[in-house]
Formats: sequence, C-alpha cells, structure tokens
Amino acid sequence: MALLPLPEHQHIRYNPLRDDWVLVSAHRMKRPWQGQVEKPVQEDVPRHDPSNPLCPGATRANGKVNPEYESTFVFDNDFPALEPDAPEPDVGDHPLFRSASAQGVCKVMCFHPWSDMTLPLMALPEIRAVIDKWAELAVELGATYPWVQVFENKGAMMGCSNPHPHCQVWASNFLPNEARLEDRTQREHLRAHGQPMLLEYGRLEAQRKERLVVENTDWLVVVPYWAVWPFQTLLLPRRHVTRLQDLSADERESLASIMKSLLTKYDNLFEISFPYSMGWHGAPTGPYLGEDCGHWLLHAHYYPPLLRSASVRKFMVGYEMLAQAQRDLTPEQVSGGGLAGVGGPLGEVWA
Amino acid sequence: MALLPLPEHQHIRYNPLRDDWVLVSAHRMKRPWQGQVEKPVQEDVPRHDPSNPLCPGATRANGKVNPEYESTFVFDNDFPALEPDAPEPDVGDHPLFRSASAQGVCKVMCFHPWSDMTLPLMALPEIRAVIDKWAELAVELGATYPWVQVFENKGAMMGCSNPHPHCQVWASNFLPNEARLEDRTQREHLRAHGQPMLLEYGRLEAQRKERLVVENTDWLVVVPYWAVWPFQTLLLPRRHVTRLQDLSADERESLASIMKSLLTKYDNLFEISFPYSMGWHGAPTGPYLGEDCGHWLLHAHYYPPLLRSASVRKFMVGYEMLAQAQRDLTPEQVSGGGLAGVGGPLGEVWA
Ligand SMILES: O=P(O)(O)O[C@H]1O[C@H](CO)[C@@H](O)[C@H](O)[C@H]1O
Ligand SMILES: O=P(O)(O)O[C@H]1O[C@H](CO)[C@@H](O)[C@H](O)[C@H]1O
Repeated sequence: MALLPLPEHQHIRYNPLRDDWVLVSAHRMKRPWQGQVEKPVQEDVPRHDPSNPLCPGATRANGKVNPEYESTFVFDNDFPALEPDAPEPDVGDHPLFRSASAQGVCKVMCFHPWSDMTLPLMALPEIRAVIDKWAELAVELGATYPWVQVFENKGAMMGCSNPHPHCQVWASNFLPNEARLEDRTQREHLRAHGQPMLLEYGRLEAQRKERLVVENTDWLVVVPYWAVWPFQTLLLPRRHVTRLQDLSADERESLASIMKSLLTKYDNLFEISFPYSMGWHGAPTGPYLGEDCGHWLLHAHYYPPLLRSASVRKFMVGYEMLAQAQRDLTPEQVSGGGLAGVGGPLGEVWA
Repeated sequence: MALLPLPEHQHIRYNPLRDDWVLVSAHRMKRPWQGQVEKPVQEDVPRHDPSNPLCPGATRANGKVNPEYESTFVFDNDFPALEPDAPEPDVGDHPLFRSASAQGVCKVMCFHPWSDMTLPLMALPEIRAVIDKWAELAVELGATYPWVQVFENKGAMMGCSNPHPHCQVWASNFLPNEARLEDRTQREHLRAHGQPMLLEYGRLEAQRKERLVVENTDWLVVVPYWAVWPFQTLLLPRRHVTRLQDLSADERESLASIMKSLLTKYDNLFEISFPYSMGWHGAPTGPYLGEDCGHWLLHAHYYPPLLRSASVRKFMVGYEMLAQAQRDLTPEQVSGGGLAGVGGPLGEVWA
C-alpha cells in the first residue's frame, strides 16, 4: 500500500471514534510564541514525605492512616465527585432543564510506595502489578456499575495536585459522554463494515507504519490519524479484547513493556517527566456484561498538553472551544520522519 | 413558578445545545488544593509599546506597518490556521482515513489603540464600535464562507500571547464541529417543540431568575443550567435574532451595555482582569444565507477558566477528557444566592 504524501496545507481530518473533525494546520508551528510558559516540572520530589497523604504510613484528610504498602495501594477518594448513595435529583419540570441521578465510587490508586517514582521508571513487574490491579478494579466495580473510568493525570500542568505516582478510578451508574459516543460509533462501524472499528484501524496502521510510535507482539501505539493534541497517542491491542480484565497473562506482560517504551519516549522528547492525562476505554460493564459488546476494542488514550518544549503547551481555547479542535503540526510529523520545521531533538528520540 | 431546591448531591444535567451531559458535584469545592497555581495576571501593561505588533504604528512580523488607528483595527493574521487557497487534500483511500479541504481566512481585530485597555474598561461608544465591526466582518466574510467564528482569548491562562485588547475572526469553508452540533440540536428542538430552543430557554430563565446574572431590555446573561466551567455564562438576545448583522441599532447599544456589566462583574469577582475565552454563535452564512435558519438564536458563550481564586483554575483533565465534564459547584451557587461553602467575595459581587 503506497504511503500518501505528507500534507503541507491545511485540511480537516475525520475522527471516526468521536464522529467529529480536527483542523490540521501543519505550518502554524512556525509562528513565534510570546505567551504563557509553564513552570519547570518538579524534579526534586522527596522519596518519602510523611505529610504527603499518598505515602505509606501517612495520615489522610479524614484521619485514616495508610498501610506501609510495598506495591500498589487503593483507597476511596476523600473528596469524591461521585458517591454510592446520592439521592435521585428532583425530576426536571421541562425538557430544557433535565437532570438525572449520579451515583458511583471514586478510588485513588497509588502505583508505588516511592513519591519520586513514575511509571516509565518502574520495573516491568511493578508495572504489571498496576495492570493487574486495574483489571481487578474493573471486575469489582464493573460488577454493578456500567462504566469504570481508569485515568491518570500526570504533572501539575494536568491538574495533578500530588507528585506521588497514582491514578484514579471513577465508576458511575451512567455512561459518560465519551463512552456513549464511542459505543455508538463503534456499533455503527461494525454494522456498516463487518469489522470492529479499532481492530481494523490497528491492522491498517501496523501495515502503513506512517503513524506508528512503538509496537510489540500484542500491542501497538500510534499517533492517530485524527489526533488533536500534538503528541496524542492511541494504545491498541492486536487481539479483539474488549475489556481490561480479559487480557491474558502474556498480554499483560507485553502491555507493561509497551507502556514503559511509550512513556520513556515521552520523557525523552523534551527531557522531562512528561505530563499527560491518559485513560482506558473498554466495553461497558454492569448491565452490559450480558450484552454483545463485540463492536468494542479495549484501548487507552494519551493526551499530553505540550507543544513546542517542556514549557510551551498547546492551548485548546477560543477557536477550539467554540468551533473545532485545531493542531499546529501533522500526526505524521510527530510520529516519525518529516519533522521539518519543528527543530529540537524530536526527530531522533521519538522515531 | 416555584424555585427548585438547590441540589446538594451529585447529579448529571443535560445540555440540549450540545446533546451531552455534565456531572455536577456540588461539594467538591471543599477539597484542599495543593496543585498548580497560576501566575498573577499581568497588571503593568504599557499603554503603547512600539515593539508590540498590535499597537498603532508598530511593524508586524511580515514587515507591514500598522496605521495610527484610533478605534478598532482589523488585519490578516500573520500565521493563519486557515488560508483561502489551500489545495484540496488527497482524497482518503479508506473510511477510517478521511480528510477534506479546509479553506478560510483568519483575521485579528484590535479593540482599542491602548494596550492597557480591556472591554470592561472601555466607554460604551467604544464597545459599540467593536460590535459594529463584528457585524461588518460577519457580513463581509459570511458572503461566501458558511461559518465565521468571532472569538476572544483573554489572558495568558487562555493562550493569549499579547495583552493588547483584541479578538480573532476565523472564517472557514466548512461548518466546524460546534456549529454542526448546535445546528442539529436547535433544528430538532424547533421541530419537536415548535419554538427556537434558545428563545424558549431565555424566556424561562428570565422568569425563573435562579441563574440570571444580569439583564436589560434586549439581552440577558445566565449561568446556563448545564454550565461546565465554574463561571461559564450564556449571553442571549430577547428578540429572535439569528445573526450578529441582524441586530438593530438599539440592540447594539444595549449589547455594549450588558457586555460592560457582565465583564465588570467578572473583573470584580476575584479583583483581576478576568481571563476567559468567548465567542459568538449565529446561524451559518454563505450558502446557508438563502435557507431557513429560524431554529437559530444568536448567542455568545463565555468560558472562564478560574475556579477558586485569581490563581486557582479548574482543570478539565483526566475524567473530563476521557469521560465527561465535571463541575465542583452548582450553576445556582455561582449565579446568585446559595453560595454556602464557597467563601470569599463571590456572594456580594456576583449577585
Ligand atoms: O492565534 P493565537 O492567539 O496565537 O493562539 C491562541 O488561539 C488559538 C485559537 O483558539 C489556539 O489555536 C492557540 O493554541 C492559542 O494559543
Ligand atoms: O481529583 P484531583 O486529582 O484532585 O482533580 C483533578 O482531576 C479531576 C478529574 O479529572 C478534575 O476534575 C480536577 O479538576 C483535577 O484537578
């Protein structure tokens, strides 16, 4: 299959997973930047700080004391956005004033006992322990809740208020917007094309290689054709797996390995602990466990905020909020060759 | 009409304009914040700086010299995300790799010759001149382009790289995502309910008064029932106007006045020049000028990033990007009474 030439001019690209478009303006990276620069990423995190509520042995806001944990550690968020017993709201009195119940659970999961650790620095068996715990929580919370959102906000730039390596898991009694959207688009794709969308997409990207960042036997990472954030990536299994808990032991091993590769590449890009928000999307659970969810493919999205350097981010603001996401370089420029005009160490370390 | 009691528990609310939901977790404001704080807003902007490319008489990146303008001043963006002559991209070879042409124009519009001026500080006739210029550009660019997006990024926090008061106008040969979405939802609402959605909504909010921020003869500003950003507002005309250029002389006068009121309230909230991104949405133009666009009501969205103070913003990150927008206080708490637990000067200045 022939490679398409790199587009040099503005165009829009369709995101089949979100049923929307992104404006790609390849040469906008050339404009000078005199706006906000971010503070340097905090590098001097103490390994253990008894006043940090995520550390082993520390006392949390509610007076509870953390165990002297040695691997992962999960506890209920002390300021949850969702609670299991929230009452039904007043039924709206008009179609323009509609509300509905929101019940759920918010958990925090520490990845490692050390505050100065991050996933890419962890050993493979330690990352594997994180993956196993994700799968365990997906089973436990997914037994009743239709959606279990595993996500990590990494770095102060992404609203993370504690440098200790951790993620969150929010389970809800409703399908959130993104879940509903991806459920619809994947369902329609299977119906129209006879193949699960992301399985087909992954196979094509593995052949085309234009947007490939890293791959192994069971997984691949691409800068998706429709990426919005400059260094956004999509992590896909090669097998038709629909949920985290369905990964085999081998797939969990190779997931630990590809996560370590991807996150090391990210860290090397601007030579900092790379900020991002990431999360897992898989088939819905709870009442959906008994339904056919074959249109789904498990996947993780990585959304990093940086654009030009460790301190200059992409702002998704006016045009993006009011009209449409816009990016300043092509996905192909990011994922490998063709880094003309970008400068810096991207070409070497990212490819 | 009786006021509904303020919901104290988590619930989700439906946004009929975007056909999606927001998670409202009223009591999340109580959690302590140890994360990123923003730099203080720049207060010492020189009134005139010959090296600032937006100032009268300054030389821009492309060597052009600005006139000694005394009111508004419009010029072509020197690093446009859209250009009128971008060629058609290669036709995608697969439904998962779809692209399309993006042609358009990006203009920058200075509001005032002074760099230390902002809209709320400007005199009413000066604001009126901005409104007239918006309408003029809407006519000029809307003659051929289906969408003309007027937007203002205010403050470094919103990616604005120049403190000189200005906005941008990006016109495109396609309907951006938000335009397509609002076109669909407003069309469906008119069909189902026999009234334009936002006209009906504005009338109800004017009666209920629960979420009203400010109003005058021709306009009202509400914190919409489905607001996502803590201090998000929606500016609506009372008359069924579909486009900026259709505003009468009186409506332009009263728009200048309500904009000044709203933006002064914003500035007083945390006693800083309040950052936000804002933009106008009206019926599409170009080929749509000949079609019935009666389902549309002209409106402006204001999306300010701050949450707790001048330096602590709301981060729309992990859960928001991967699952669904989440807010930490109710729209009713923001718009007037019931500010329990929020603290600070919000109650007095915002009400
Ligand atoms: O054109 P500006 O003001 O330099 O750029 C700003 O607004 C644009 C439109 O919302 C965004 O794409 C940029 O990320 C932002 O920094
Ligand atoms: O719960 P945290 O980590 O304090 O909070 C962070 O993640 C949440 C979920 O994405 C966001 O709602 C918050 O705005 C952000 O600061």
